[in-house]
Formats: sequence, C-alpha cells, structure tokens
Amino acid sequence: MSLKTFPVVQVMELPSGPPEYEASRRTLLEEFATKVPEELRLSSDLINNAPRNVTDVPRQCGLLSPEEIDITENYDATALAALIREKKLTSVAVATAFAKRAIIAHQLTSCLTEWFMDEAIERAKYLDEYLQSTGKTVGPLHGVPISVKDVFPVAGHWSGLGFLVARFKDKEDCQLVSILRDAGAVFYCKTNQPQAIMHIESTSFYGRTLNPYNTGLSSGGSTGGEGALQALRGSVLGLGTDIGGSIRVPSSFCGLYGFKPTSYTLPRKDVLPMGALAELSILASIGPMGTSLRDLDLLTSVALASKPHLLDPRLIPIPWTGLNTTPKTSPLKIGIMMNDGFIIPQPPVTRALNWAAEKLKSSNAFSVKSFEPYEVATALKNIHLALWPDGGKGVREVLAASGEPMLPLTQWELKDIDGVELSPMEILQQHVTRDNFRSDFARHWESQDVDFIICPASVGPACEHETGFYWNYTCFWNYVDCPGVVFPTPIKAGAKGAEGYAADTPPPLNEQDRHVRKLWEEGDFVGAPIGLQILARKHHDNDLFGALEKLQHVLELQ
Amino acid sequence: MSLKTFPVVQVMELPSGPPEYEASRRTLLEEFATKVPEELRLSSDLINNAPRNVTDVPRQCGLLSPEEIDITENYDATALAALIREKKLTSVAVATAFAKRAIIAHQLTSCLTEWFMDEAIERAKYLDEYLQSTGKTVGPLHGVPISVKDVFPVAGHWSGLGFLVARFKDKEDCQLVSILRDAGAVFYCKTNQPQAIMHIESTSFYGRTLNPYNTGLSSGGSTGGEGALQALRGSVLGLGTDIGGSIRVPSSFCGLYGFKPTSYTLPRKDVLPMGALAELSILASIGPMGTSLRDLDLLTSVALASKPHLLDPRLIPIPWTGLNTTPKTSPLKIGIMMNDGFIIPQPPVTRALNWAAEKLKSSNAFSVKSFEPYEVATALKNIHLALWPDGGKGVREVLAASGEPMLPLTQWELKDIDGVELSPMEILQQHVTRDNFRSDFARHWESQDVDFIICPASVGPACEHETGFYWNYTCFWNYVDCPGVVFPTPIKAGAKGAEGYAADTPPPLNEQDRHVRKLWEEGDFVGAPIGLQILARKHHDNDLFGALEKLQHVLELQ
Repeated sequence: MSLKTFPVVQVMELPSGPPEYEASRRTLLEEFATKVPEELRLSSDLINNAPRNVTDVPRQCGLLSPEEIDITENYDATALAALIREKKLTSVAVATAFAKRAIIAHQLTSCLTEWFMDEAIERAKYLDEYLQSTGKTVGPLHGVPISVKDVFPVAGHWSGLGFLVARFKDKEDCQLVSILRDAGAVFYCKTNQPQAIMHIESTSFYGRTLNPYNTGLSSGGSTGGEGALQALRGSVLGLGTDIGGSIRVPSSFCGLYGFKPTSYTLPRKDVLPMGALAELSILASIGPMGTSLRDLDLLTSVALASKPHLLDPRLIPIPWTGLNTTPKTSPLKIGIMMNDGFIIPQPPVTRALNWAAEKLKSSNAFSVKSFEPYEVATALKNIHLALWPDGGKGVREVLAASGEPMLPLTQWELKDIDGVELSPMEILQQHVTRDNFRSDFARHWESQDVDFIICPASVGPACEHETGFYWNYTCFWNYVDCPGVVFPTPIKAGAKGAEGYAADTPPPLNEQDRHVRKLWEEGDFVGAPIGLQILARKHHDNDLFGALEKLQHVLELQ
Repeated sequence: MSLKTFPVVQVMELPSGPPEYEASRRTLLEEFATKVPEELRLSSDLINNAPRNVTDVPRQCGLLSPEEIDITENYDATALAALIREKKLTSVAVATAFAKRAIIAHQLTSCLTEWFMDEAIERAKYLDEYLQSTGKTVGPLHGVPISVKDVFPVAGHWSGLGFLVARFKDKEDCQLVSILRDAGAVFYCKTNQPQAIMHIESTSFYGRTLNPYNTGLSSGGSTGGEGALQALRGSVLGLGTDIGGSIRVPSSFCGLYGFKPTSYTLPRKDVLPMGALAELSILASIGPMGTSLRDLDLLTSVALASKPHLLDPRLIPIPWTGLNTTPKTSPLKIGIMMNDGFIIPQPPVTRALNWAAEKLKSSNAFSVKSFEPYEVATALKNIHLALWPDGGKGVREVLAASGEPMLPLTQWELKDIDGVELSPMEILQQHVTRDNFRSDFARHWESQDVDFIICPASVGPACEHETGFYWNYTCFWNYVDCPGVVFPTPIKAGAKGAEGYAADTPPPLNEQDRHVRKLWEEGDFVGAPIGLQILARKHHDNDLFGALEKLQHVLELQ
C-alpha cells in the first residue's frame, strides 16, 4: 500500500466530476495521505470488510495501547482537564491517544479534512513543560484536545466553505479557536462538512462521512465530521456551526450532545469572513458538540469568560452561568411536542419522546404538558426562500469554477429556487415576515405556559445516505433563533421491520410526511441512536442549561 | 379668526407642491385647527411679532394659570408621578396643564402633528378616580403625560413615515405605548418629524418645527417636534427614534436629555411595521427624550420591567439597572474626543467640551484622557450607502404618489445616490464591512483604555433652517451601535460674531469642515444651548447610566 493512497471505508460512490476536478480532488487526498504514517493505517482487509457498526473497531484494531483506549473512552474533556492538571496524565499522552484514534476514525468514516498529530504533540509537550516548570496550567483547557469543523480558521491549516475552490490557508486562528488555544486546548484535526455547508449529511469533495453505528447511514450534517469522529471517540469535544440544524442533527444521529446557542452568543469572528448570503435573514450559531453536557458548559464558559464581545460587538454580553443557573420556577414547566404537525417522526423517535415524558412525569421537579406546534409549514416556506436570496446563483458559480458536481442534496435544495435575486425591498419583507413570525411564536409559547420544549431533533434516526431531505425539527428553531441542546437517549433503532408506526398514527399529513414514512419502511436503521432536543426562549441560554442540570439526573444524561 | 385657520409662527416658507398636494395638506391642518378651542389660541399679534426666543411666551401669554405654570415648569416626570401618587396634584390638573402648554408650544414652533386634550383629560379623570377609589396607582407612571413622536402608533390616532401619503390611522398602540399606558401614562399629543424621518431638522407636510431658543434655528430632527415641545415644557418626557442621531440631535439642539439605547433594547414592535430599508444594515433605536436623566431612567425601567422580550424576541433581555448600576471601575475612565477628525465642531461646542473636561479633571471619581477618533470618513461613506439600499427609489415613488415636493435636505441626502438597487451580495458586503468596522473600532476603543467617551453631539449648536447637513457626530454611533446619552451643558451660543474658532484650530480638514466653518461665520446662533454626548460600548447601556449617576454631580445634570 503506497503512502500516496489512503483507503477508507466506502459504502457508496461519490458523484464524479470532469477530469481536472477529479485530479484536484485526488491531489488533496494524496496530500492528506502523506501525513499519515504506515503504522497508523488499518489493514486493507479491515477497510474492505468493515462491519456495518464500526464503533468497536478503534478498540479492537490493535493500533491503540490499553492506556490510549482508556484515555479516549473513559473521560470527557472536563475529566481529562482535571487528570492533566493533577498530573495523572500528560498532555502528550492525551494528544497522542486522540490523534491516533482520530485517524483510525477517519479510515472508518471519512470524518476528517485535515490531521496534524505532529503539531498537536509539539503543543502538548510545551504544555507539559509549562505545567512542570510553573506548577500551573495555562488555562482551564490545558491539554484538552479539541476537534474543529473545517469552516473554522485554525492558524496554519485550511478552512473552507464546502466547495473545492473555496479553501483558504489560514494564517491566524479565528477568535474562538484563539480563545480556546489560549485556555490550553490542543488542536489536532479538522472535520468534514458537506457541499455548501448546507446539508444535514456530510459529503464533500473530501469524501462521504459515514455513521459509525451503521455505515449505511449518514453521520448527519453539516457538522457531520464531528459527529462520526466523536461517536468513535476520536474526539470528545469539538466545534460546529448551525444555521438549520448543523450541530443538532449530527449530535442526534451520532448519540452526542450538541448546543446551538442563540445567535451571537459564542464568538464567531473570522468564521465565514466573507459572510454568507443565507445569513441575510437567518443567523448561524457557533456551538460545541461533545460527549457530556458539562463539556458543552465548559467550552461555552471558557469562551465567554474571555469577554469576546469586547472585540466582536455582535456578541451579546450576557454573562454565562450555564449549569449553575438557578431555575426561575419550580417545578420546571416542560412542554413536550410529539410532532410538529408537518412530519410525524419515525417510530423510535416517538418511543424516545414517550420514554422522556414518562421519566419526567415520575419526578416532582417537573410539570409536563404537551406543546402544540406552531405554523411549521409556513416557517419552512419562509426559511427555504430566505436561505437563497440570490436564487442559488452563487452556488452554481462556485461549483462551475472547478467543475465540482452539484451533489444530489444541493440539487434537492435548489429544485424550486428560481435563480432570481431578491431586491432590497424583498429582503426587507423577509425580515418583517420573520420578525412577525418570531413575535407571534413567542406569543404562542407564552400561551402554552411552559418554560422549555422537548421535541424530536430530527424526523428519525440517522438517515440513509442521500436521504437527508427534512430539517424541519431543527431549522424551525434557527428561524425563531431559540437556543437548543440535543442530548442522547438510551433508545436505538432496531432491526429493519421490527418497529412500525403506532396504530393510532393519523394518515400522512402531507407529501413530505408520506415520504418520511416510506423512507422508514424501506430503510435499515439498525443500531442508530436517538437524540432529543430541548429548547428555551431566545437569549435564555443560561436558563436552558439550568434546566438541563435538573434534567440530567432524570434523563440519565452525562 | 376662523377656527378653520390656525396661525403658527413661521420664519421661512415651506417648498410648495402641486395644487392637489397643497389641498390635502390644507385639509390636514384644518382638521388639526378644528380641535383647538378659541381660548387656547395666541393672539395674531403675538404670532406675527413673536420674539426670536419664544421660551418665555408660554409663561407670559396669559393662557396658563399660575398653577399650570408651576406644574409644567418645576417638575420632571418622576416628580410629577410622586405628586400625583401622594395626591398633591391630580392627574387631570397635570394633563390639563401640559395639554394647554403643548398647544401654546405648537403655535410658537409647529411642533405637533396631533393634539387630543379631551382624550387626555378623560383618561386623567379615570386615573384620578382609580387612585381615589382604590388608594393605588395603576403603575409607576400614573398620570404622567408623555408626548409621542408621530411614527409611534397610538390607538385612535395617526402615525406616519414622514410622507403625506404614508399616514395610518392606528387601531392599536404599539408595544411601547401600550406598556407605558398600562403603567399609567397619559397621551395628549404627537410630535413632528421630517420628510422620510431622515433629516436632522423637522420639516414635514405638517410644518417646519422651530427652535424655541432661536426660531431662526432648527429644533433638530428627526425627533424635532419633541425637541421644541419639551424646550417649551409642553412635555417633560417623550418618545423618539434614532437611526442617525434623531433623538440625540434634537436633544442637543433644545437643551434636553436624550437616550439612544443599543438597538433592540427598548420595545419597538409595531413601530415602522412594514420595515425600513435603511435598517437592512443599520438598526434604529427607540429611546426617551426628557428634561432629566432620572426620567430617561424611569421610562426605560418601566418599559423593560414588563419583560417586552417575551413578546418581541428581537429585544435583548438584559435586566435594566440604570442609574443604580455600580460602576465596574473606579475611577471611571473617560475619554474626551474633542473632534472626530472629520469636522471640527463650532466654537461653543469646543467650549462645552473644555468645560466638561475641566469639571471632570477636578474630581477624583474620574480619570480623563483624550480619545482618538477612528476612521470617521470611512464610516460616513459606508453609512451613506447603507441608508439607501434601493438607490432612493422608494422615496421618489412615495413622494410622486401625492406630488409632495422633495425637500432640500432629502435632495441633499440623495444627491450622490445613484438610483441603483443593491443585490443580495452587495447587501451582504455592506454587513461584512459594517461588522468588521465595528470589530476594528472595538479594538481601537480597547487600545485607548477608557470606559466611556464624551464628544460633541453635533457639529455645532442648533443649525439654521435647511442647513442640517452633517450628522457625523451621531450617525457614527448608530453605525457601531453604541448607546449614547445627550445631556445639556450651561454653555450657550453667544451673539453673532462674538466667538470665533480658537487660534490654534488647524486649517480646514476637508470640504465639509470648511463648509461648517462658513455656516458658523454666516449664521446667528444666539441663545442656542449646547449639549454633549456620552457613549458606552454596545449593550453596556446599564454601565452608561451607572457612569451618568456619577457624572451628574460633577456636570450639574438634572
């Protein structure tokens, strides 16, 4: 096996482009391959005959020592930080273990876009020496490995917009990466995101990211590289972005925790420095994905403690209290939205909601009622138009520049986008429509008299590849800009055909609902984890974490 | 004198339009006149021979009783609320006094667009009966008269966008008016604003608002009706909007206090319900104007105590602490910006800044240094383009609809606007440019190591009519979205020719600076008050008031 080639598990071919595009792609993949030493490569036999569920492979493949398996499997970032601080683990040992596991994960799921173990170990050595010589850590994340979605600039590496021609070698860290680095974080890889960063799957010119629990399924998107990497514990904490579900969908598909804050909560300066047309009407959020709730809190807390609003006044300077927030009411009033009136979720999601409802009802700390959905079809129509104010012109141009084929999910999104650019007055009308919708929804929320909403994070478990059509359970919350956290449940999808829709399920609500039922009947989702989503009112991110602190005991959260 | 005509002091003709436009205008003015009883009209002799400074007229004209003079001259809203609460004054007496004084003010300065004394007295009677029968007030503003800029919807009255054809009879209060009404406020008039609500003077189809201190000068704009009304104490507290200086300029021109909060601090739902193109890139703020600092605090406090963000999630739910905010540093670090590097202010403004600097330097509570301006010319260019994303198309269309003449200041603003609509990508580029500017300015502010900035509120005292060309000292702060308060100083402009630029003033910085010097040499600003402006970082509105609490003792603020 030559160093020039770097086989990864593949379950479905990528659409191919013209020869010059394919040559450019191949160059990128070869550049990646040259950085990976022979001793960290899985056997071609394993690659070619990988099981459908690859989550045991890192542990069993023989490339990790028992200590490396322990480091990567048994701690979250908060625990790792403590072990390093207490000198029970070195930063080098931790960086080595996660970097090794990350490249194993990549071979199983195509989750990375860059991997830089050498740089990470060098940084870890510095941190170990610093701790040794000063007796102090450089900050609360001293030695903690953090994985980073491709779109975030990290000094010396490439960031991109989800197109082959839109990659940039960054000289400097973006603000958030810089803050985390100053707090002691160790960076070692960047993770895959889809074309245009606008699918809830993660297929790009770098490759198609697979779901480790079932490689026939997507790891979600657009932060799907993080999803697959963390599900294989090649990382326990990473950075994502979310304009329609891009943190929450992969968290849900991969059994992880993901936090989409209210927009302009976490620092995003230098991310998408040229702006994003979709953000003319709907703002993206920056947020953490991880394997525990307290790690989401830790990252948020570290990021905001640095007062990033002093350098980016777009950020709202509400001090972070997170899991230490005292709930304003007792019992906490939780509304459960079993479906959004647009698409009834696939059976294991409903099972997870019922599980959660039962758990909550058994506790005195919560008052549980059902939450009525609000005008989701209207919101979806508004969102669809708002995301493409140039009629898709920019995407077509940037693809044409390299011959990059338009992927099926991009085609799906643009299928009824007419190519016509909005006028300033039409953009203004979208704003007015959006703001009125938010206000009407706020009134609706008030009328339901609940503090928080628990609902599906997706129409089902992880979708089969190229079927990530429906974002309704996540993009609605971007449209109303409410903060949300996805958390895993013990529920998993069973064998194909083992679980049907409940007998009392109404007839299909519409074409999309019918389609989702068909996808369920035809698909094989075995082993896919089910996450749920909890939402708070806009800017009530602290209250959301205050509620999660109470929920974690009842809902068995980490 | 027939009830159909209603003479007001006039110093300069309005540009006239075609007959059908003038007929519509006349109908409006006649409708206004029919509501004003004979006994509240000033003599035609007084109207025709009004002094240049009309501030003594209300007291001396004989239409107000000694009690009415006392009520309107000797208390701010906070004091009036206390007197009513303690049953030392009735709501009816207060409403009567202010409504009478308001209509006197209108005859002197054309400050009103509507006047509804009967409705106010009816409301005041209800409040008096309520207090009498329950022993309680309906809220903290029980019986407090509040004047309202035309653009705010008040149930049963007209609101407008600054064009004859864009007037709307409102069925409901906008959110802020509703909150204030619930807190006990009494509404009795609406106040003038200029064409398109986009000048720093206030000439509209309703009339030209004059400055009471010197009717040859403008009362400022766009909240200039409030400015003139309050300077004549026909109101002590009112509502304005500010996208380029529209609260702060009239406050400065009329010797008042005005607060432009960070955008989305005070509730603005239902104000400009169809949106405003200028707001695609620069947000307007809602804010109070008044005769004391504590009244600005009172109104803000009442508005935010009602948790308006629950119904309009655009609002940032930072709890209001206002004047009770404990400063984070001691001494407070104040940067004084003597000029913005673009236009050196006219002599009395520099005199006021020197006065303030001396006062502050004499106190241990402050550390005073100079603040270097930042790239004002660049900001002004960006702002100018951002305010007209449709190339001025909408304004031309709405004027053409009635034949309303384009006023000289509208022509001035549109003179190099090319009529071309921006594309979505160009709007996005404006956002990126703006956000980068804000971030760069934030870094600049940090580098100067000050907490607050004191600077001019305008290039000079109140400008002569039709010369309000330069907003640089206010619109810059909208562009960076920093909260600002204008406060009066004891400084006034002297007689024409009595005060020149200091000998060490550099040669004109540019064409605009030269123009402002010429305006100073040629104009007669005698008696015009000078206000100054203090700014805080975005979203640090509470800190701004915390600083003002400390400043009020040193700077003789009310």
